[in-house]
Amino acid sequence: MSRLFRRFTSTISIKPTPSKTHYHQPIPSSSFPTGYLLTGVHAGVKKKAGVLDVGLILSTSSRPTSAAACFTKNAFKAAPVVVSEHVIASNAGRARAVVINSGCANAVTGKQGMEDAWAMVKETDKLLPSSSGSSDHETLVMSTGVIGQNLPISKILSAIQSQHENSSTRSLASDFSAWERAANAFMTTDTFPKLRSRTFTINGREYRLAGMDKGAGMIHPDMGPPSIGPLHATLLGCIMTDAAVSPLSLQRALTYAVERSFNSISVDGDMSTNDTIIVLANGAAAPESAPEIDEATDKEGYEIFKKELTEFAIDLAKLVVRDGEGATKFVTVTVKGAPTYQDAHRIASRISTSALVKTALYGEDANWGRVLAATGSVPLSAPLHPNKVSVTFVPSDGTTPLPVLVNGEPEKVDEERASEILSLEDFEVLVDLGGGDEAEVARYYTCDFSYEYVRINGDYRS
Amino acid sequence: MSRLFRRFTSTISIKPTPSKTHYHQPIPSSSFPTGYLLTGVHAGVKKKAGVLDVGLILSTSSRPTSAAACFTKNAFKAAPVVVSEHVIASNAGRARAVVINSGCANAVTGKQGMEDAWAMVKETDKLLPSSSGSSDHETLVMSTGVIGQNLPISKILSAIQSQHENSSTRSLASDFSAWERAANAFMTTDTFPKLRSRTFTINGREYRLAGMDKGAGMIHPDMGPPSIGPLHATLLGCIMTDAAVSPLSLQRALTYAVERSFNSISVDGDMSTNDTIIVLANGAAAPESAPEIDEATDKEGYEIFKKELTEFAIDLAKLVVRDGEGATKFVTVTVKGAPTYQDAHRIASRISTSALVKTALYGEDANWGRVLAATGSVPLSAPLHPNKVSVTFVPSDGTTPLPVLVNGEPEKVDEERASEILSLEDFEVLVDLGGGDEAEVARYYTCDFSYEYVRINGDYRS
Repeated sequence: MSRLFRRFTSTISIKPTPSKTHYHQPIPSSSFPTGYLLTGVHAGVKKKAGVLDVGLILSTSSRPTSAAACFTKNAFKAAPVVVSEHVIASNAGRARAVVINSGCANAVTGKQGMEDAWAMVKETDKLLPSSSGSSDHETLVMSTGVIGQNLPISKILSAIQSQHENSSTRSLASDFSAWERAANAFMTTDTFPKLRSRTFTINGREYRLAGMDKGAGMIHPDMGPPSIGPLHATLLGCIMTDAAVSPLSLQRALTYAVERSFNSISVDGDMSTNDTIIVLANGAAAPESAPEIDEATDKEGYEIFKKELTEFAIDLAKLVVRDGEGATKFVTVTVKGAPTYQDAHRIASRISTSALVKTALYGEDANWGRVLAATGSVPLSAPLHPNKVSVTFVPSDGTTPLPVLVNGEPEKVDEERASEILSLEDFEVLVDLGGGDEAEVARYYTCDFSYEYVRINGDYRS
Repeated sequence: MSRLFRRFTSTISIKPTPSKTHYHQPIPSSSFPTGYLLTGVHAGVKKKAGVLDVGLILSTSSRPTSAAACFTKNAFKAAPVVVSEHVIASNAGRARAVVINSGCANAVTGKQGMEDAWAMVKETDKLLPSSSGSSDHETLVMSTGVIGQNLPISKILSAIQSQHENSSTRSLASDFSAWERAANAFMTTDTFPKLRSRTFTINGREYRLAGMDKGAGMIHPDMGPPSIGPLHATLLGCIMTDAAVSPLSLQRALTYAVERSFNSISVDGDMSTNDTIIVLANGAAAPESAPEIDEATDKEGYEIFKKELTEFAIDLAKLVVRDGEGATKFVTVTVKGAPTYQDAHRIASRISTSALVKTALYGEDANWGRVLAATGSVPLSAPLHPNKVSVTFVPSDGTTPLPVLVNGEPEKVDEERASEILSLEDFEVLVDLGGGDEAEVARYYTCDFSYEYVRINGDYRS
């Protein structure tokens, strides 16, 4: 029994958080990109025996592997973020391995934290088939968990060493189970491993995307401008493909994808010190002599790849909201008719983070007044016209949407119908500012705010 | 039993929200400003019999009464906000009465809402001793409660009519009980009426300030620039004084006071459509022939008044946080050593609204990593130096503060001592960015995020 529970004695009735474990399903091994070895092991960062807390992803492709990433723009960047940024920048967008630990974020850990992050990189480098001869490091590192505590680094290094080629404990493999182990090693308060794959075709050849992410709290992305090298995002995720993509085009495609996926989700509005999205493209399924896909030389191929990566990133991002800490609802907030896309995006973000909106969603209360108050609190590039604004609740089951505000006038709401829609696990809140359909529609994915969120976060360190 | 409770069957243990009712105490009638009549009555906006839901405040001074106000800058301004702005502007800062109702916000109510707000003004005007002969309206109106529902206007007008001079039901008076009734009529989810008074001296003469406010949720102020007429704030409050202050100087003093009080509190980060702070200065205690206090002609007197009003506004603002929905803690967030005051204020605001920080406060968990993550997520006017940042938990009982981060390095925290401090109802989180003491210190007042907050807001309309 946790500390929080022991001390407090009153009780309240709660709506149980629905199980999300069915969102994790087996994937045929043939659906994963070729040329990758993965595993997850128990190093002992997490106390509970057998729980996976160190993950490894290696590219074994004979072609060069491109790497791109988006990093948090928090001023207190964790050591692994600083180190990964350095590795990508100094290698001109090439890297072949990723090491991750969960249970400890290695954030705000001073000099020791930097040494530990580098030690993880160097130990993982040793697992790679002999490199091109350069002494550059080829491993990216990610950590997630509690801030301000040092890693149990010797345990982590031992775990990495257990995967040496001649080690009897080596479990690196390429089947579903190996991908699943790696995805499990990402988890903190996640209730299921987040693993997905996707197949696509460019120039008549089939490629695969697969990836995993984690994150259930401290989730609210904020992106830096695309012009400043590797970008900023807020999530922990890793996407692998066996297509061959040039480093620069890989970064540009990832930037585009992240804007429309991880940049449009919110669990609690808090930005982490560690969040990182990595994509590796190892070309293992590309024709041996074919050049890397590049925006400049193969625009069509690049556009297909960008679209596939974006849709895949949206799928992965949605899983994080689905598993938001204590979440009982998956709500899409759509804003259209705003002066600009940025205005629409800001409003969608504000609605998605409002504590009052999110508790109303939990209570299954069609309290559109709170949606409107949140909408009205956002400074816009042009004045909003209250008498043109409409709000509609859209059910996910294909039945008729329920307008609650039309051109600024409240509708006589059928409360029974409202209850029906709000009792669904998935639905959409549609805000139309009435400014026409010229600006792009902004779409945010959010969840509700429950008792369980308070319990998880009131007692996380204990 | 509420709808939320009936449907959900699991139970969890919770920390009970402490009673706040002892923050309401009797005040000697002599401590209230002279020349005001007040009452609160049950009109029937709220269903429960006898619960006060309409409040009236009238100035009976023979001198002109100055009025100043700060209003929400939400794009969906409620009808009473629009009407009160109009009355103040068209009367050059003069008004003699305030009418308030709780239980219904009269927000997003279209034409009918505007008619209702005007009807409240006109009916209250009739209670005033014969006016100067002008046909201008002299009443300001405030409403608070659910958004999107029309007022039961005839009930409200009857309640106002019950206070006519020759009515047997008239309860307008000037004693403590009358002030208390008015304060009670402000309440929505508040657990105690928020009423305070203060005495001060200017030019050898004693004056009094008294006021009331309300608000326990949808509390996060955002001020408009001082140059645009009546300002924007986010709270419902009314402050009365028997000093004589010119309209312009009254507005300037209120603007200054609100920036440092209502502009520095947060319960849940949500901005309302209705929030209004009004101040009336009726000169009833000023010498008959003395001119009004004015910044231009009596700088010294003005500065004293401004200082007294500011300190009084801070006292009233703190009461709102104290009574924050479900709050078990009252936490002062102090940020110093930032590049500018605005930077410090932004960081203090961000920490004060972080769901992760607020749930950790509820769990009495010294999770300074979340404080730091919130700090680092704020874009500043100059780069922050992580290795100069310190975080300290300061107990309210005068015992030794506990540093948890010093110049970017985590301290070995004595967890028992941390628990001791965090188990207090009041304490301070001090963030020093290490940039020297030149910039003004920013101070925010916030509360924790509890199960009770979720319960209150998941089931508000039911």
